[in-house]
Amino acid sequence: MRVLVLGGDGFCGWPTSLYLSDRGHDITIVDNLSRRKIDVELEVDSLTPIRPIHERISAWKEVSGREIGFVNLDLANEFDRIVAVLNEVQPDAIVHFAEQRAAPYSMKSAKTKRYTVDNNVRATHNLLTAMVETRVDAALAHLGTMGVYGYGWSGSAPIPEGYLTVKVPTPDGEIEREILHPANPGSVYHMTKTLDQLLFSFYAKNDGLRITDLHQGIVWGTQTAQTAKDERLVNRFDYDGDYGTVLNRFLMQAAIGHPLTVHGTGGQTRAFIHIRDTVRCIEIALTNPPQAGSQPMVLNQVTEVHRLLDLAKMIGDMTGCEIAYLPNPRREADENELCVRNDQFLALGLNPTTLSEGLMEEISEIAARYKHRVDPTKIIARSVWRAGMETSADLMTEVPAQQ
Amino acid sequence: MRVLVLGGDGFCGWPTSLYLSDRGHDITIVDNLSRRKIDVELEVDSLTPIRPIHERISAWKEVSGREIGFVNLDLANEFDRIVAVLNEVQPDAIVHFAEQRAAPYSMKSAKTKRYTVDNNVRATHNLLTAMVETRVDAALAHLGTMGVYGYGWSGSAPIPEGYLTVKVPTPDGEIEREILHPANPGSVYHMTKTLDQLLFSFYAKNDGLRITDLHQGIVWGTQTAQTAKDERLVNRFDYDGDYGTVLNRFLMQAAIGHPLTVHGTGGQTRAFIHIRDTVRCIEIALTNPPQAGSQPMVLNQVTEVHRLLDLAKMIGDMTGCEIAYLPNPRREADENELCVRNDQFLALGLNPTTLSEGLMEEISEIAARYKHRVDPTKIIARSVWRAGMETSADLMTEVPAQQ
Repeated sequence: MRVLVLGGDGFCGWPTSLYLSDRGHDITIVDNLSRRKIDVELEVDSLTPIRPIHERISAWKEVSGREIGFVNLDLANEFDRIVAVLNEVQPDAIVHFAEQRAAPYSMKSAKTKRYTVDNNVRATHNLLTAMVETRVDAALAHLGTMGVYGYGWSGSAPIPEGYLTVKVPTPDGEIEREILHPANPGSVYHMTKTLDQLLFSFYAKNDGLRITDLHQGIVWGTQTAQTAKDERLVNRFDYDGDYGTVLNRFLMQAAIGHPLTVHGTGGQTRAFIHIRDTVRCIEIALTNPPQAGSQPMVLNQVTEVHRLLDLAKMIGDMTGCEIAYLPNPRREADENELCVRNDQFLALGLNPTTLSEGLMEEISEIAARYKHRVDPTKIIARSVWRAGMETSADLMTEVPAQQ
Repeated sequence: MRVLVLGGDGFCGWPTSLYLSDRGHDITIVDNLSRRKIDVELEVDSLTPIRPIHERISAWKEVSGREIGFVNLDLANEFDRIVAVLNEVQPDAIVHFAEQRAAPYSMKSAKTKRYTVDNNVRATHNLLTAMVETRVDAALAHLGTMGVYGYGWSGSAPIPEGYLTVKVPTPDGEIEREILHPANPGSVYHMTKTLDQLLFSFYAKNDGLRITDLHQGIVWGTQTAQTAKDERLVNRFDYDGDYGTVLNRFLMQAAIGHPLTVHGTGGQTRAFIHIRDTVRCIEIALTNPPQAGSQPMVLNQVTEVHRLLDLAKMIGDMTGCEIAYLPNPRREADENELCVRNDQFLALGLNPTTLSEGLMEEISEIAARYKHRVDPTKIIARSVWRAGMETSADLMTEVPAQQ
């Protein structure tokens, strides 16, 4: 397949591009390098020494013999150029990762809230209108988030794959209707993914676009078989309070001997997936698109669920670190159960990597190996989220001198 | 109350501003005059001779003795200026009409689709973030649309006031949940109002904003008690294929002796409200806001429902015009029933103006009086809506020479 990977320089996009290239697909990466620029803005850097995109692509050519195309393009703001790229590449499939993807960053300020909404909604809508305009009939896979569902809404019912069959009262009794699972986003970032869902529903219905929305859990793990082939191909590892997800922050804290910081009770249960499974899921989604005229297919890109406190304890047991409790800035339940359906992915052949298998590799191969690159002042999340949380300085704890 | 009316130069905004001013409120209009500029782009004009905004405001001062403020500001693109206006005016209430509001226009081209999404989402989100940033605790009323619900989804159940109680299956039986009515928009324009709903839900939950979303039916009627006081205050009357709503187009066709053009069978049932009731509803909404911390209040701003064919027949009977049937570009059922709950507005004192009372006034005072200003080539809707509808020239019929 000819595949466009929008956001192909990012944490999910880069390993997806290499995996699909390795599997024989022709890849063109479209990226405006915004993720690297936000690192500059936040004065942080990937723990792993990621290389410039052109060096990455040359290294891949050396290692694999395969070419990857690259277009530096801002999907949210260069509509005419994405139209030209679609016309030129005539992709069979498109992967859309080109969105601002950190919840804490999206809540930092009016500026980051507005950037997140503008960038994400415009990127998605520009892509959809460009597909309609060019009549490129590509299968589109978009990275959504488990956060669209919220946590705890369904009681003991497992979170379905996007759609929910409900009973609606009528004067004569009740009728059954299949609905998109109600949206319960916890941040501006998550909200943008609920907006994307409505854009996808409309363009699938009105224009017959074939769209799969992948509601991904928290990704962990750094390397795939492809990114591990050469250090110049290494994937990014974010540990800072904005972009570092919970597991990465625990890993870094453990590596430098800082207590593992849990927001709230740690009773929050979340869904996880290893980056190696993410890239496989993307290919499965692209090769099994919905029919034209169908509603968007929604898959839960998730392989296991854990309570955050259990994760902290697991890493604490492996490394000897203590746990420290901090206030939780998010409006969410202290504790929740979580059961997520991922039947379609399992039926389509996904064979998950579990935390118990992969965690030790992260501790030794990534966190320990690169800990000399860490800035320990950046690990704690400091986004304020709303008025009344201005004492976010309270969220800081003393950090030990760098090891 | 100090009230900001965003979009206060438009078809609903202008009479709302005058009504609220007449009722003793201090009004500041914020508008970028985009609606007038789109008339320039489309080479059409209001049938009624609307005056420039400053002349309108001066005339109102002469007639009523009351001042109205005006700020020319693009809400979607001038965030810092809306922050400054909020800080300066410190409004008690805000009415948000500042969105592109024509479904056919939103479907004309990639450009108008993108403009509609960018303008509407950014306008709403800029307003919400500016309210959070400035901590202006105003009651916000936003003009939504009945089109968010779609038509026919609920079977025989009346369309509820925004929220629906459904039963969700669980392993142990079922649970009841109140959900936002599922979104079923029929155009890019309607879709933006479904996006707005999710923005409102999030900011109500996260920041305690007090928001009322008014899902309005098709507005008809031109004048209110205030706009009728002086011809310089006259409200706009759009009859063109993009901005003219169905009733206005029938009225113009009747006035010039053109057959009344019905798209499809005319069995589509829609909800209506007179502009005089719109302005009352806005004041009712502003003076009865939800509590901080509540989900957005949703009211159906609707007073009666009619089948489009019945409307055409009603006007045909009054004027002797024939009916002509054209293809329908919208993906919608040929026929639908519609029953809409508006209990809260009725309980809060709304006493509706019905079509049977007001229609003759529109025929004689507006359509007949100003028919010398009509461009008959502009009456037919020509938006293509999707690939395969390129024969939209078929939607044209011969128009008689101007009367």
